[in-house]
Amino acid sequence: MKIPSVKYMRDFYPAEMRLRDWIEGNWRSASLRAGFEPWDSPILESLELYKRKSGDEIVGQLYTLTTKGGEELAIRPEMTPSLARMISARQSALPRPIKWFCAARMCRYERGQRGRLREFWQWNIDLLGVPGPAGDAEVISVALDGLEACGLNAEEIEVRINSRSLMAALLEAIGIPAERHAAVYAVTDKRGKIPADALQEMYRELKLGEEPLARLLEVLTCESLEDLGRVTAAMKLQSHQAALTELEDVFRYLDALGKKAYLKFDIGIVRGLAYYTGPVFEIYDRASKLRALCGGGRYDRLLETMGGQAMPAVGFGMGDVVLSELLADLKKLPTLQSGTDFVIVPLEEERVVDALRITGMLRQQGRSAEATAKAGNLGKAFKKANESGAKVVVLVGGREWEQGSVRVKDLQSGTERDLAIDGLVSQLTGQA
Amino acid sequence: MKIPSVKYMRDFYPAEMRLRDWIEGNWRSASLRAGFEPWDSPILESLELYKRKSGDEIVGQLYTLTTKGGEELAIRPEMTPSLARMISARQSALPRPIKWFCAARMCRYERGQRGRLREFWQWNIDLLGVPGPAGDAEVISVALDGLEACGLNAEEIEVRINSRSLMAALLEAIGIPAERHAAVYAVTDKRGKIPADALQEMYRELKLGEEPLARLLEVLTCESLEDLGRVTAAMKLQSHQAALTELEDVFRYLDALGKKAYLKFDIGIVRGLAYYTGPVFEIYDRASKLRALCGGGRYDRLLETMGGQAMPAVGFGMGDVVLSELLADLKKLPTLQSGTDFVIVPLEEERVVDALRITGMLRQQGRSAEATAKAGNLGKAFKKANESGAKVVVLVGGREWEQGSVRVKDLQSGTERDLAIDGLVSQLTGQA
Repeated sequence: MKIPSVKYMRDFYPAEMRLRDWIEGNWRSASLRAGFEPWDSPILESLELYKRKSGDEIVGQLYTLTTKGGEELAIRPEMTPSLARMISARQSALPRPIKWFCAARMCRYERGQRGRLREFWQWNIDLLGVPGPAGDAEVISVALDGLEACGLNAEEIEVRINSRSLMAALLEAIGIPAERHAAVYAVTDKRGKIPADALQEMYRELKLGEEPLARLLEVLTCESLEDLGRVTAAMKLQSHQAALTELEDVFRYLDALGKKAYLKFDIGIVRGLAYYTGPVFEIYDRASKLRALCGGGRYDRLLETMGGQAMPAVGFGMGDVVLSELLADLKKLPTLQSGTDFVIVPLEEERVVDALRITGMLRQQGRSAEATAKAGNLGKAFKKANESGAKVVVLVGGREWEQGSVRVKDLQSGTERDLAIDGLVSQLTGQA
Repeated sequence: MKIPSVKYMRDFYPAEMRLRDWIEGNWRSASLRAGFEPWDSPILESLELYKRKSGDEIVGQLYTLTTKGGEELAIRPEMTPSLARMISARQSALPRPIKWFCAARMCRYERGQRGRLREFWQWNIDLLGVPGPAGDAEVISVALDGLEACGLNAEEIEVRINSRSLMAALLEAIGIPAERHAAVYAVTDKRGKIPADALQEMYRELKLGEEPLARLLEVLTCESLEDLGRVTAAMKLQSHQAALTELEDVFRYLDALGKKAYLKFDIGIVRGLAYYTGPVFEIYDRASKLRALCGGGRYDRLLETMGGQAMPAVGFGMGDVVLSELLADLKKLPTLQSGTDFVIVPLEEERVVDALRITGMLRQQGRSAEATAKAGNLGKAFKKANESGAKVVVLVGGREWEQGSVRVKDLQSGTERDLAIDGLVSQLTGQA
């Protein structure tokens, strides 16, 4: 009787695993190119850590367990609480700025649907200790570098950028007090996800007052920073200027980093999570067919909440699932080959040891090689070698062996030649 | 208030993470060089999967949980049950031989001690569909390739090899019936872990009969295959010849693969797990100071147990913890550098955008580069660049900038020169 796998979690057979490795490799190379360093936390953390950051209601979305020793634990659903915990633990000893990345496995007990699985991998980039817009721009540009490494470009994806500090200043200026901002963000976060009139109704239900509501709805129509400048000038708003200049600098720095074509100011991006404090962003496919590829922003106050010292911080998370779906939709999934460069085929049982000797020497030289386990069966050996992307097949035995040589076939050119057994490996490694 | 991490699990700060990445990279390259393909399973499996393979008593060593949906799950403590499940699910569709590897995270709820943590990584190599000793030799040689990639050699480690089929035939021949073999293996598995006289007492308590016990103890004194040949000839034992020839072939093939210096026949290696059916092996540091680095063997009947078709199989598991300890004991831990090749320093606030432009272009060329976030502070910038292993520092601004150039310092040679801003990036990438 067969035992099934866990629902909404994936088995990675070699074809799927090569794709996951390729995505993680792109994330990793983009991170290292920008000087970010790898880190990781245990897959299990104390349940308290997640309650501290997100409140008790998070528990329903976690895989939780209690050990025989009475520890209440959860499988990590995200990396930020672990990051805050680890940085708090060594905050004074860690050199600044802190530039960390991970490509981390995590689990959430959610309703499964397209783009939302119960186990997934997430690329996290976090930059701590850099307060200004250069930090925000750096983090956004690395996200785009990772997506470019996956073959995506500015015709296919865009970064939608806003700022929580700008929004707070604007709301304040149009007469919405600070204690109502979270409610406004919660509604604004639904933009594009529900019909426009349902959204309007939700804003009205907030009972912000007639004039503030009218101004809010007008501000929310702005489609560019220039629009926003015109509208706020007409309303004679001013106190948001510092936050606006900061956001403009983020755009300016991203332009310098070569990412201008991706950028879009989007006043609807506020991010649901309470802890953001400055610029926020999400990356989408331009066709808007899928959920966000990536989301992040500045969270300057999180470390205090988690028991550390105040420290400026900005970061993002990018999941593997939506990214894979977008690459598939765009027919940009790579063809990833398996198999070794060299396939060594013993023609007779007595040549198995000789085939293994050649195989061992090739590996010793850092080359990939495998010997077929059984002597003979040339047809099968060539078929497998061709399918696996091998470059060279070496036939060990027969008349050639008696004459002190082996038959070598180059699968790309189709040419065959005999090479002397003496010095064979250096001849082979020089060739392919 | 700070929240602690989970007991006996490790936080990977960048220094520790670089080491883990390096070990996994060595495992991966040895696997790919031999034509093994990557795979992975979910971190959670149904609890039933582990009960099926190991019986109900395994549950005490697992992190288990029940979801709100009523699923009984466990965090994987090893990969073999997942491997058997995944291969069973697609057994007829998978091309043979199946050569799979993984470097997988897993958790066990065990008493913490040196070399035994509650979360660790394990390299698994599994080869299915190859029945003979060429398969066993291949798997053992890849384990050694992985350890060689970590810088270990035959003076520091050895493979201790035995065979469960040989042992079964020997026990049978000296008059110990098949149903007592598991008990004999359980005692034999304690060799070297408890005092010799305590071990003798345990054998006596098995009540195997006077003559069989005497013969068993004599056979167990054999320290080489030659010894074994002499002792069994004197006892006139014969029915173990096929299993012996098979084991001799494993040694012969490993010799061909260049691994002779590591090999040691060790009649005390039986492996505790019930499912082994042929050659078995463990790798140890020669000083025998640590637990086994690696253990594995042939398990031809496991797939049937797990709901699949019968299929020859051989594999091993190698953990990261003991390996790291051995490398540390031998002072062979590598020095792994962080940081980018290029550090770009804006000398004035107005040059930040120019510094970012150079940084972006270097990254676009596939080079690693970072700009310091703040203008000026040359001393700090150089100190950090030196510590992080940077190769080149580029100073953007000052008199040089006004003259259309930048000052470039090579940190290895200590030389400085001015390069024109025009064509700067191609000059820089040509240099370092």
